[in-house]
Amino acid sequence: MLSHFDGAGKAHMVDVSGKPVTAREAVAEGCVVMAAETLALVTQGTAEKGDVLGISRVAGIMAAKKTAEIIPLCHPLPITKVALDLTPDESLPGVRIRATVKTSGQTGVEMEALTAVSGAALTLYDMLKAAEKGMQIEGIRLVMKDGGKSGRYEAAP
Amino acid sequence: MLSHFDGAGKAHMVDVSGKPVTAREAVAEGCVVMAAETLALVTQGTAEKGDVLGISRVAGIMAAKKTAEIIPLCHPLPITKVALDLTPDESLPGVRIRATVKTSGQTGVEMEALTAVSGAALTLYDMLKAAEKGMQIEGIRLVMKDGGKSGRYEAAP
Amino acid sequence: MLSHFDGAGKAHMVDVSGKPVTAREAVAEGCVVMAAETLALVTQGTAEKGDVLGISRVAGIMAAKKTAEIIPLCHPLPITKVALDLTPDESLPGVRIRATVKTSGQTGVEMEALTAVSGAALTLYDMLKAAEKGMQIEGIRLVMKDGGKSGRYEAAP
Amino acid sequence: MLSHFDGAGKAHMVDVSGKPVTAREAVAEGCVVMAAETLALVTQGTAEKGDVLGISRVAGIMAAKKTAEIIPLCHPLPITKVALDLTPDESLPGVRIRATVKTSGQTGVEMEALTAVSGAALTLYDMLKAAEKGMQIEGIRLVMKDGGKSGRYEAAP
Amino acid sequence: MLSHFDGAGKAHMVDVSGKPVTAREAVAEGCVVMAAETLALVTQGTAEKGDVLGISRVAGIMAAKKTAEIIPLCHPLPITKVALDLTPDESLPGVRIRATVKTSGQTGVEMEALTAVSGAALTLYDMLKAAEKGMQIEGIRLVMKDGGKSGRYEAAP
Amino acid sequence: MLSHFDGAGKAHMVDVSGKPVTAREAVAEGCVVMAAETLALVTQGTAEKGDVLGISRVAGIMAAKKTAEIIPLCHPLPITKVALDLTPDESLPGVRIRATVKTSGQTGVEMEALTAVSGAALTLYDMLKAAEKGMQIEGIRLVMKDGGKSGRYEAAP
Repeated sequence: MLSHFDGAGKAHMVDVSGKPVTAREAVAEGCVVMAAETLALVTQGTAEKGDVLGISRVAGIMAAKKTAEIIPLCHPLPITKVALDLTPDESLPGVRIRATVKTSGQTGVEMEALTAVSGAALTLYDMLKAAEKGMQIEGIRLVMKDGGKSGRYEAAP
Repeated sequence: MLSHFDGAGKAHMVDVSGKPVTAREAVAEGCVVMAAETLALVTQGTAEKGDVLGISRVAGIMAAKKTAEIIPLCHPLPITKVALDLTPDESLPGVRIRATVKTSGQTGVEMEALTAVSGAALTLYDMLKAAEKGMQIEGIRLVMKDGGKSGRYEAAP
Repeated sequence: MLSHFDGAGKAHMVDVSGKPVTAREAVAEGCVVMAAETLALVTQGTAEKGDVLGISRVAGIMAAKKTAEIIPLCHPLPITKVALDLTPDESLPGVRIRATVKTSGQTGVEMEALTAVSGAALTLYDMLKAAEKGMQIEGIRLVMKDGGKSGRYEAAP
Repeated sequence: MLSHFDGAGKAHMVDVSGKPVTAREAVAEGCVVMAAETLALVTQGTAEKGDVLGISRVAGIMAAKKTAEIIPLCHPLPITKVALDLTPDESLPGVRIRATVKTSGQTGVEMEALTAVSGAALTLYDMLKAAEKGMQIEGIRLVMKDGGKSGRYEAAP
Repeated sequence: MLSHFDGAGKAHMVDVSGKPVTAREAVAEGCVVMAAETLALVTQGTAEKGDVLGISRVAGIMAAKKTAEIIPLCHPLPITKVALDLTPDESLPGVRIRATVKTSGQTGVEMEALTAVSGAALTLYDMLKAAEKGMQIEGIRLVMKDGGKSGRYEAAP
Repeated sequence: MLSHFDGAGKAHMVDVSGKPVTAREAVAEGCVVMAAETLALVTQGTAEKGDVLGISRVAGIMAAKKTAEIIPLCHPLPITKVALDLTPDESLPGVRIRATVKTSGQTGVEMEALTAVSGAALTLYDMLKAAEKGMQIEGIRLVMKDGGKSGRYEAAP
């Protein structure tokens, strides 16, 4: 049932040689929950305080490109698009992160989207930890995937 | 207030040259929440199904060593210890992850511990996603840090 | 004669632009020779001693993905399969390693298979060196390759 | 007995925090065995054929710096010296490789020396494989290590 | 106008999913300007002094493969050719570097060619800095690109 | 005379084991020369156009951490500070880049500072190339170094 293991339970990188090259897309999300005072550092006066969201966005894009280095059994893929939205949300309070990744390949880009979210979240934490150590990274999940034999998946809202 | 930016709001890797080299330790945790049926794949019959927890643990250790590559403003550090505990928990249901990292250096290893947890969580997701796409990574946070000028921090339980 | 050098003897990454994309496969093998007592640590009581073979297998899979970073003139390739068999063999005594790599590309995956074997062998050595420093890595060679203009190659048994 | 696993058999990166920083050195060796005709391509007319040995030497040096990325439980170390000797030997026939690595640190550099030899051997294979696919990498082993609590080790000749 | 930013000014890795896969080529150049005495170390007696140009050439080839790791918004690409010419030029005095990169893909290889030149130039500097710290890297620019929707570009001579 | 080669002209990573650990600092600079219209895209309305300078600054910081991966004979070093200034200069017209790197170690950080400048310059080129392909990277040089046996060096202005 778990495709990353062969019949004898040994881990392998699954053979996708026979799969057709199709358009693939995945969207993942997550958030960093923090104190309202910490969020205010992100949203107020970007010019003086430094561009916390911009740097986290870049870190997420670069993390997506490292996915196959971080996740042992993940296939390397030539990604054709990565975009991240980082949105401050006072109702959390915190920052919502959403990553969209595309490729044209033989496997999906779910892990690339989830890794992009994780990289952006860790970077947010790093830049804000001088203000608050108690932040938490929450709700990292796959929102949508499309392409490939298994077709489209959409998470419940 | 945010030390990763200078007075003009420009990002930099903070100067820690003047800090003493001290013993540093950090503990982080997080979990992957899944359906009970998915968790059963992890806990039952490891021999046939493959060692999901063992591979995620190794991925977490290797991710800790990549921290300064993933997080833009993070200092590279010669880590002296990384250990991960991955514990199935039917009350989630899911797997709890806890990482401990040590170094002797001029900055702390909080980000290394959080990155180890993230790497292990992403790898768990990758190996189990054929069974369930709706898993979520939750509650990644710093549990404890010690060493350095700011001393000991312990999260509320 | 050596394709990695141009007519003036200067190293280059060979131009494969004009080659067709075909299915490629390569199998490599090698072994780590050790004392019978050391091999017993691998084969007896995996549960208590830790999964030496499982971690070496993962290391070999990840090494295959690093081939073009380790070997200067090697083309980067989107690998579509990596599998490793690690088999204890009391007649050596030691562990036999066999790696199979596939891709669909313009060059072969011989170096990826040989790098996978090397990565697994080095990791085996690392995990067992506390017990025996005199282990040796032996007989790393290409067993088979298929695909591309030069067609199939099989090593003498 | 195997220090890379804890009492419960779980892999970890061993805690070396308490170890003193001492001068460390390791020497490893290995060879690539080939047909006499292939060796002649290496030794004759370097100017026209390209510098096979020089490029393999550089690859070995760079591989030493990647050791902690390739071997999962290996500590990252700031290496202070890497040198490789690649010596054609008609009695094999083939090329003998010998790597010397030094650091000042809390763990030894045995794995760095063995990885340097492996990287150089794989690169030699890569550059000569157009002439001969049947080459073999043989006899990779630790020749000497010094420094640290366990002191000096010298392999039998 | 700047394609690396969306309508709201947020950086992303541009979506090239819809672009056709075409043959791409780029040529870049640059030089390292040095004292005549330093250049003499490069050109005289390579055998005794070491192969400064050969190692810089290899470094340039390897740098081309790291392009997408170094440049945040750059797409990862399976490069099919990299070649570098390093030519001593007494009229500078210094070394001229020229890199040619090819791929078959959805985006161009301009950045790969420029990164190859930069990597070779930095390595030249590193190997010669014991003799002269005042060297300068000059004139890194795109000479030619071909392929893709925007077609051929040739720099003014 | 060239310390990166031994007496027989073979490249090695120089042995710095015997050198004392001292405070090291290096400053490097360079610039990207472009059309006035291109520079205007950088300086006008950052909010809408995207933060070209901010992303290049982050790329330079991350490139500094990759120095020992890019330059074959360079020692890996635990950097303790990296800062980059990117200043638009209409008199070029273009952007001036200046990088400061510090460490406490056995070798200097000149190459880290030069690599930071190169990484930032390449990233600037990448983000602006849709507007102008004829930009040039110029004048990358060491401005100052301090620490170590050879002491302080300052470039002529």
